[in-house]
Amino acid sequence: MSIQDPTIAVVGAGAVGSYYGGRLAQHGRDVHFLVRSDYDAVRRSGLVIESCDGDFRIPPDVVRVYNDPRRMPRADLVIVTLKSTSNDQFAPLVRPLLKDDTAILTLQNGLGNEDRLAELFGVERVLGGMAFICINRVAPGVVRHTDFGFVRLGEFTRRDRRDRAEPIAAMFNASRVKCEVLDDLRFGRWQKLMWNIPFNGLGATLDLTTDQVIASDEGLRLVRELMQEVRAAARADGVELPEELVETNLHYTRSMGPYKTSMQVDRQQGRAMEVEAILGEPLRRARAGGVKTPVLEALYRAALVVDSGVRTRGAAHHR
Amino acid sequence: MSIQDPTIAVVGAGAVGSYYGGRLAQHGRDVHFLVRSDYDAVRRSGLVIESCDGDFRIPPDVVRVYNDPRRMPRADLVIVTLKSTSNDQFAPLVRPLLKDDTAILTLQNGLGNEDRLAELFGVERVLGGMAFICINRVAPGVVRHTDFGFVRLGEFTRRDRRDRAEPIAAMFNASRVKCEVLDDLRFGRWQKLMWNIPFNGLGATLDLTTDQVIASDEGLRLVRELMQEVRAAARADGVELPEELVETNLHYTRSMGPYKTSMQVDRQQGRAMEVEAILGEPLRRARAGGVKTPVLEALYRAALVVDSGVRTRGAAHHR
Repeated sequence: MSIQDPTIAVVGAGAVGSYYGGRLAQHGRDVHFLVRSDYDAVRRSGLVIESCDGDFRIPPDVVRVYNDPRRMPRADLVIVTLKSTSNDQFAPLVRPLLKDDTAILTLQNGLGNEDRLAELFGVERVLGGMAFICINRVAPGVVRHTDFGFVRLGEFTRRDRRDRAEPIAAMFNASRVKCEVLDDLRFGRWQKLMWNIPFNGLGATLDLTTDQVIASDEGLRLVRELMQEVRAAARADGVELPEELVETNLHYTRSMGPYKTSMQVDRQQGRAMEVEAILGEPLRRARAGGVKTPVLEALYRAALVVDSGVRTRGAAHHR
Repeated sequence: MSIQDPTIAVVGAGAVGSYYGGRLAQHGRDVHFLVRSDYDAVRRSGLVIESCDGDFRIPPDVVRVYNDPRRMPRADLVIVTLKSTSNDQFAPLVRPLLKDDTAILTLQNGLGNEDRLAELFGVERVLGGMAFICINRVAPGVVRHTDFGFVRLGEFTRRDRRDRAEPIAAMFNASRVKCEVLDDLRFGRWQKLMWNIPFNGLGATLDLTTDQVIASDEGLRLVRELMQEVRAAARADGVELPEELVETNLHYTRSMGPYKTSMQVDRQQGRAMEVEAILGEPLRRARAGGVKTPVLEALYRAALVVDSGVRTRGAAHHR
């Protein structure tokens, strides 16, 4: 494999995949996009990125876009940006792209994505990363990036080696994406969950923006309890999240103003919510570690009800 | 007091008050309406009732409408149809209407309304009733009644006597409102809560219609658990709700199709939700009886967050 000048496949080029793959392509990398619903639009008009860090476009005669992974070249690096609710598609979408030494980097939300990739394709291939970015697909093939954008990534299991993570991070950093390598990916995952569980969880389940979630004392109490439960679950998983992160997260949330999490957007548009990756899998880790997380448990159950409910023949629109 | 031909005051003539007061006025009773927000509209155009049991109108030259209880005649019967979130207005709104023997009938939702009225005005005055009706205010002074309409009422504490409840029920029955007298008002209250707690509670908190709430196995499980918790809380309050009511309620809910509870409507319109009467007070009764109701507790907390959240400077509309 050439991790120095890799052939890159982006699997699931929604907003996140289009943006990061687009940045790499814009900076001369050999990027191949696997696109499903927007394939025709991207073929016709290319990728259009409206970004707070500078608009750009990958024109249709330049963009390498596919709707079938079997037509794509085998890659040195596969970047997985599918929604985690499509993880049952890993085998047909990723397997055709693999050589013996292909690395797989998942930038998906939540827990369990690396595990599933490792199970299917071998643990030594897998890296994971967190994308800290406010981004939306605003039309087919058109993505709007409004804030942040940095990536933190690390090896899934081989914490001692950085010979893959470092060059990948360097490549992002050379493509206008700030990227740092984590010694401990699990720390990064749990740290991000400490925010995502209360805010994506309550935001989507109660259909409230982040500022509405913390508008009441009861909301603040629930958020703090959830964050402490995440700390306890993380500890059982071998990760110690500092107590101060609770108030740091709240401070940061207040500074954001009204923000709609991706899971709330999914809910409002009647699309599948990432309930398992963001709530279900962390809850199962807590249970496996013998840790009680009653608020997370109630939230998970409510999220399942909402996830089914909002996809029930659009009843809410009838009256 | 003349309970045979009473002077009637309706306090809080929203949808429910306008409808029942309107039916009584339509059938020749002496009804005086205390109206707040819609006062000008009712003065100008009267009360307009579009009803599945027959449209009718109380014209402006006939309707007796007030915006100040001190201008109203003292009543033999005060019917309270305020939203329970305005119960802090009982003293100024109801006291001016009372004679020594005035009866007070609250048709409000949930628990605690009779108690509060008894505390302020004397327990011997108080009756309570449940209005089973699908009704909405569609414009100022205009009410649309789409289904059901019957009332069940009873004495708050004096279960042995029916000499007030019977004539009041007879008066409703003579005015095209089916009405029956309950031996045990508390049974009726808890029985109605067995439906209202899961469906108003989850419907408003998760912003789902009734069919969406029960669209998933998890939703059905939560509803059944809540109904069993209500049974346990009722038992601690001296009321035995038969087990069969669980499935009867579910059967009845399925037959309704997509239905938006009043609390969900309040939520969507950014109005105060009846969280305390429907969730908080039943929870406090359970606690006082030493009964654990963890799902109700979680639901109550979430409802408080939503109730504050949706009244937070309309943030959800910003993006």
